[in-house]
Amino acid sequence: MTCPLCDEVGGVPVWRDEKLRVIRVDDTPAFPAFYRVVWNAHVAEFSELPAEDRHHVMDTVAAVERVLRQKLAPTKINLAALGNMVPHLHWHVIARFAEDSHFPAPVWAPAQREAPAALLKRLAEALPALDAAIAGALNG
Amino acid sequence: MTCPLCDEVGGVPVWRDEKLRVIRVDDTPAFPAFYRVVWNAHVAEFSELPAEDRHHVMDTVAAVERVLRQKLAPTKINLAALGNMVPHLHWHVIARFAEDSHFPAPVWAPAQREAPAALLKRLAEALPALDAAIAGALNG
Repeated sequence: MTCPLCDEVGGVPVWRDEKLRVIRVDDTPAFPAFYRVVWNAHVAEFSELPAEDRHHVMDTVAAVERVLRQKLAPTKINLAALGNMVPHLHWHVIARFAEDSHFPAPVWAPAQREAPAALLKRLAEALPALDAAIAGALNG
Repeated sequence: MTCPLCDEVGGVPVWRDEKLRVIRVDDTPAFPAFYRVVWNAHVAEFSELPAEDRHHVMDTVAAVERVLRQKLAPTKINLAALGNMVPHLHWHVIARFAEDSHFPAPVWAPAQREAPAALLKRLAEALPALDAAIAGALNG
């Protein structure tokens, strides 16, 4: 059994410390502003972590969320730790917009429309500054 | 504008304190072991809460998760805070099983099969003890 989040970074590296890493997901074209906070060690369930580590991972999730809110003013942030396919703890942090391809449904539901090109362009252009702002917030 | 999580409890009441409540979701027949941790005040985004409150809500999520793992031995726990339809902070805590209607897809994706009657029966029978164990864990 191999685990893709043990074997690979899993996306565009944004920030990391000894315990966890933040990556930008680059394989979901309809959702460019999609980050993951990945626990570095192979742990399946959130509640397997001691309180201090749980607080650290959620403080990191909140910091990523805060940057997305400040820089993009999304309609909503979606957070999730599912791991049905890859049972290695990772938190999805996704900026959602009223006009995106799935809203108000979750990103895992069927698409309701095509994502508007103007939204995708705005988000794509924002990504370098977003990555930098997330790293800055976590270094700060 | 009214908010259903301001106006109503939102499910079967399991536990509450000043800040939050735990409810069992009773409107998703395919997923009987489905709880929500609802922030009592109307807050839309997780990162709007100060650190102490974020830790409290996630400690509660972890406690619910731990009881589900201990009592049901699910294949995986799924956690999510979405709120696209009801932007009032609530965490979904869902016990998932390899044979459930959607696994390994998220519960918001199309169903892949009917949920086996034996699984639904086992979970339905476990609910009163689950509710009590969650309340006990949070009181403890």
